[in-house]
Amino acid sequence: MAKIIILGSGVMGTSLTVPATDNGHEVLLVGTPLDLDIIAELNRPSGVHPKLDEACSNRVKPISFEMLRTEHFSEADMVVVGVSSPGIHWAVEILNQMMTEPRPVAFVTKGLDPAATGLATYAETLPPRIPMMSAFVGIGGPCIARELANRQPTASIYACKDVGVAKHFVDMMGTDYYRLSVTTDDAGVEACAALKNFFAIGVSAMQTHYPDRKRADGQSKNPTAAAFTQASLEMARLCERLGGTAATAFGLAGIGDLHVTVGGGRNSRLGHGLGAGRSASDVLSNELAGETVEGVDTARALATMLHSGGAAAVRDEDYFPLASAIMDAVLVEEPFRFDFATLAVR
Amino acid sequence: MAKIIILGSGVMGTSLTVPATDNGHEVLLVGTPLDLDIIAELNRPSGVHPKLDEACSNRVKPISFEMLRTEHFSEADMVVVGVSSPGIHWAVEILNQMMTEPRPVAFVTKGLDPAATGLATYAETLPPRIPMMSAFVGIGGPCIARELANRQPTASIYACKDVGVAKHFVDMMGTDYYRLSVTTDDAGVEACAALKNFFAIGVSAMQTHYPDRKRADGQSKNPTAAAFTQASLEMARLCERLGGTAATAFGLAGIGDLHVTVGGGRNSRLGHGLGAGRSASDVLSNELAGETVEGVDTARALATMLHSGGAAAVRDEDYFPLASAIMDAVLVEEPFRFDFATLAVR
Repeated sequence: MAKIIILGSGVMGTSLTVPATDNGHEVLLVGTPLDLDIIAELNRPSGVHPKLDEACSNRVKPISFEMLRTEHFSEADMVVVGVSSPGIHWAVEILNQMMTEPRPVAFVTKGLDPAATGLATYAETLPPRIPMMSAFVGIGGPCIARELANRQPTASIYACKDVGVAKHFVDMMGTDYYRLSVTTDDAGVEACAALKNFFAIGVSAMQTHYPDRKRADGQSKNPTAAAFTQASLEMARLCERLGGTAATAFGLAGIGDLHVTVGGGRNSRLGHGLGAGRSASDVLSNELAGETVEGVDTARALATMLHSGGAAAVRDEDYFPLASAIMDAVLVEEPFRFDFATLAVR
Repeated sequence: MAKIIILGSGVMGTSLTVPATDNGHEVLLVGTPLDLDIIAELNRPSGVHPKLDEACSNRVKPISFEMLRTEHFSEADMVVVGVSSPGIHWAVEILNQMMTEPRPVAFVTKGLDPAATGLATYAETLPPRIPMMSAFVGIGGPCIARELANRQPTASIYACKDVGVAKHFVDMMGTDYYRLSVTTDDAGVEACAALKNFFAIGVSAMQTHYPDRKRADGQSKNPTAAAFTQASLEMARLCERLGGTAATAFGLAGIGDLHVTVGGGRNSRLGHGLGAGRSASDVLSNELAGETVEGVDTARALATMLHSGGAAAVRDEDYFPLASAIMDAVLVEEPFRFDFATLAVR
């Protein structure tokens, strides 16, 4: 039985408490400054998580970040950061304040670091920022938090340059419903985690752009399947440019996570709006107002890579026609237009 | 303007007349012995295809196979076989009777040839059986026939060892909505065309096996995404064993076609029944009675490969857990049980 600290009590951080406590571990679930209501609710008798609609195991101790002490980290066997990308600065600050001994840290945070010069994954940018972090572990794969909390079979992949560290996390967290693989390609897992949000915008746009009234869901299938395939190929190419391997893009962190992301969630809703002919700002200022749409951040980060001149071919229409169409729609407010002609004969 | 013969007036053969005639070509659409009603209907004034619910261009001449003459082949610029696997023997016989000059032939027929010793794709087995066929062209990729007939954007891939021949077919058939790529990996395209039907059974089973009542479609997403990824990996491995390349499995013919096949069609309906806990024979003798379920034929062919001893590792649970689960359910009448544990740590 181990002690695990999970930073961030949003849906993903909280859902990870389920396999952890099913394995008999004790979890300190730490709310961010934005999680005050969640922690208050979880600390009420029979309180349920307001977004997850589930109660936590009694092996979970929900606390607000203000209650966190360095002793918590000294006693902990494992640290997991469960925040999304807007919370990463907060998490880094907490780790640097509280962690006084070297320790590996796992991150569910998905994103390309826009603070980096050019473009880089968190696998590259976080280690130098957190001196006491002895190893970076990236968590990827198709995982809708609510389904994990409901113990639906979920396959994920834990990435660490030191495969022994990844295996240790997997031993602690894996259950019969939370099936974990390991890889040393941390850069690839992180790149894919960000890229799949971005590409989900474009694949989802197909679902509304080419309707089929004869189907129950109103969507044609051929254009979406073609775009899904194209997204996979472009994701593999970009993954390699970001220091990962193409194989990672064709695994759980890439096509697996893309599969689960298309059709649900905020990136997909943006795509559905674009596919229906609306502008990105229209969708983002209406039904997605105030929401974090991580694929948009990735689009900006890819544009940074472009402008840095380091990888101009990202705009090469021959190689990245889908990425280009998404960037044009999201950043330059052009109508979404993915021309299938750019896929033809090679 | 060219003359094209399409053998088989089912939905796929007939849908190919749409891009062909949009390009200005004339098509002789030849009904098989099972297509007598279709040809009769298409030859009525303003007749529509009974399954496709569309009329043909007036550049299409529908005829029954009995009307076919060797002159038709002498005059034709291009020959396409549009039948499914049960019709392949008929098509071979027609080609051998009628084709008196060397000529390349393209096939939409998907399948592993069960007549072959061990296991082989049509790319291997058909050329020796059709002496006048100067080149074999395999057509793959995500293409629901009705959507192609409705001119929805569709990406497909034409495979021929002689890439110039593939490009010639693509020049004749490609339009702004029917976007065609080429490859020399004919064995891979044929292997994937068969394997995706087989794996669609297993991925579709997840959709009913793990329901989620909180969703509109009643399906959880994590298990399906995990199985889709696993199917892609196993398809790539089997594709290589059948003489193709893994890259083909990760392209339009593999994951693209798998994407479009999961959730619709007969293989998927079998999977949905298995996922709901029913036996294969129950599903096949009720709602699928009398239907060709090509994934079942592929399961049998894979079992042949197994018994031939040439590739015993196809049953190696470490490498093909999903294929094994599907074969057990389809051929041995065991309940469908894909244990995610077999995916864990590598």
